[in-house]
Amino acid sequence: MNLPPRTVERLSKYRRLLEKLQESEESYIFSHQLARMLNLTPVQVRRDLMLIGFSGNHRKGYNINELLALIGKTIDREEGHNIAIVGMGNLGRAVTRFIRKNKNRMNIVASFDIDQSKINDSLEGVPCYNISKIDYFIKKLEIDIIVLTASSESAQKVVDEVIASGVKGILNFTSAHLVVPKSIYLKDYNIITSLEEIGFFIKNP
Amino acid sequence: MNLPPRTVERLSKYRRLLEKLQESEESYIFSHQLARMLNLTPVQVRRDLMLIGFSGNHRKGYNINELLALIGKTIDREEGHNIAIVGMGNLGRAVTRFIRKNKNRMNIVASFDIDQSKINDSLEGVPCYNISKIDYFIKKLEIDIIVLTASSESAQKVVDEVIASGVKGILNFTSAHLVVPKSIYLKDYNIITSLEEIGFFIKNP
Repeated sequence: MNLPPRTVERLSKYRRLLEKLQESEESYIFSHQLARMLNLTPVQVRRDLMLIGFSGNHRKGYNINELLALIGKTIDREEGHNIAIVGMGNLGRAVTRFIRKNKNRMNIVASFDIDQSKINDSLEGVPCYNISKIDYFIKKLEIDIIVLTASSESAQKVVDEVIASGVKGILNFTSAHLVVPKSIYLKDYNIITSLEEIGFFIKNP
Repeated sequence: MNLPPRTVERLSKYRRLLEKLQESEESYIFSHQLARMLNLTPVQVRRDLMLIGFSGNHRKGYNINELLALIGKTIDREEGHNIAIVGMGNLGRAVTRFIRKNKNRMNIVASFDIDQSKINDSLEGVPCYNISKIDYFIKKLEIDIIVLTASSESAQKVVDEVIASGVKGILNFTSAHLVVPKSIYLKDYNIITSLEEIGFFIKNP
């Protein structure tokens, strides 16, 4: 299915919210309620759900269980994704704990570092391997996404390697400007850039 | 100055790259070189720099020092921004270290937590205060940006409080859907949502 990135992002957000409503035993929700809770317009919500072929009931709204099932079927791969954390410094360890703590379908199957004191250790059940063996483990464990929390200096080299080994998606926490082929899905979390962006817009409201 | 968010984001990226070039004692750069290094088109680069009123020399390209000075003048506030980290768990501590380690104009002047063992302690010279005193410290220290690394459950409550105290910008690492007034600049780093987005697009290339 072909969907715009923003729609996929919102579908994932609808899911988080619907899961919470499901826990509090709600059965139905209207587009305008969903919209209000997420700071969107009802038209936007209806358009997103129409794109995945879902329609509500005029009197009762959307059936939460059915909508959750369809979002899952649309976004997820049945077997989940095998991911690895590259760089187990403070940020890598924090992100590992965060992903483990929050409900999702990502299996963190490995982490990598250059630091001998971390290698062969594990955190939250995630083993840490020597980064020199990254090609071997990416192929063996069928890792298709990496979270890059290594140093900016090593980032491009690591990325070239993991792409050659078969990785298709990257969440980049370093401030390095990564150059990747068009076939690779790269998402940048550049903390300094984002803070500067926030700083600019609150200076020029 | 009125600039689109994407332009500001790119100006911040140009700056990171130009600073590196400056270190290696380059004096001039062409738009096509800048574009190639950042995976953009030369037209895009020229348009961004035209928006801030900068033009290059046809033979030599852009003067790196002059361009850096103008980007700084455009993006930065002279006195920098006072920021606080809210939630000093693993992620909060990692982000604090990251911001301190990387060159930028953000002054982390405080952090907040509910955990007695962290309160009155400090990390990288950043003091940690009891979150019950957040209103007092935000006003006293003139904090205008917070990085939210607290729990998702407490996120909206914290955000309502800090906005009432005068905060204008938020970098949100929690998976909470924050509702904020239009005057507040909110940037979401929703790790799970981003991983699901990456997962979707590598499943449907």
